[in-house]
Amino acid sequence: MLDIARYRNGMAMLAGAVNVITTDGPRGKAGFTATAVCTVTDQPPTLLVCMNRSSYAHPFFVENGVLCVNLLAAVQQELSGVFANRDIPMEERFARTDWSPLETGSPAFAEALVCFDCRIALVQEIGSHTIFFCEVLEMQQSDAKPGLVYFNRGYHHLAADKAA
Amino acid sequence: MLDIARYRNGMAMLAGAVNVITTDGPRGKAGFTATAVCTVTDQPPTLLVCMNRSSYAHPFFVENGVLCVNLLAAVQQELSGVFANRDIPMEERFARTDWSPLETGSPAFAEALVCFDCRIALVQEIGSHTIFFCEVLEMQQSDAKPGLVYFNRGYHHLAADKAA
Repeated sequence: MLDIARYRNGMAMLAGAVNVITTDGPRGKAGFTATAVCTVTDQPPTLLVCMNRSSYAHPFFVENGVLCVNLLAAVQQELSGVFANRDIPMEERFARTDWSPLETGSPAFAEALVCFDCRIALVQEIGSHTIFFCEVLEMQQSDAKPGLVYFNRGYHHLAADKAA
Repeated sequence: MLDIARYRNGMAMLAGAVNVITTDGPRGKAGFTATAVCTVTDQPPTLLVCMNRSSYAHPFFVENGVLCVNLLAAVQQELSGVFANRDIPMEERFARTDWSPLETGSPAFAEALVCFDCRIALVQEIGSHTIFFCEVLEMQQSDAKPGLVYFNRGYHHLAADKAA
């Protein structure tokens, strides 16, 4: 088997967009920062989110059965740190900005580049992680703004209007 | 259901690292460009790749049961275009550069940022697409170089050493 530390070093070079994934429902409100998000198909509009099964927020997502992917813009880098910080309680994380739920009731951050409001359609467990396959029920998109990615263990900004 | 065109516009803002996914084996050699790649877990090292089931290369991956994720650097942007172009036959795509297979025999591009050489461990079909869950058997990593991402329908470069 490939050494875990080597694998992590390799994966650090896979640039990922930064998202705050939220949920609300019978179990309560929770949210975390994730780069392991990708589109699956547009028939029907479906994306996936990977989450560590041992994380505190995991049962909130499983029991609520809904989530919102809030795709962050460059200027929202601080919010990424807040939702990635285990020492900040959920209530305090959400108090940092305003949220406007769309269809599922999961907190949606209107200033995000895009909010994808989803129903969890299928749950797949792989090793230590869960993959949530999510049908996108509603979406809210802001005007194009510079994007935020995590690459080589640091944040980077992407121009909204100028491709390389 | 969310309108497909709206969903595509939203997903265009989800920045993704650019990879050339290759395979070789009983069915023969094939490769395509993908941004829908993410890490799943490091216990054991596992990543996933989403692929359109109707694409020409799809049966090559299913029948060979192995693949290599070649994570491209900024200077390798041209190769991304080659492997995304349906009008370029497989043989011609692979002739554009040198390949050095690792453990599975799938073509590995030594100059890529990282090559993740994988066995397909689980195949999940969702709508029009297949998700390949892949165990990483071997990996080859180059020195850090600027990265390549696709965002807002264009290529962008990421500095290797300077975070925002």
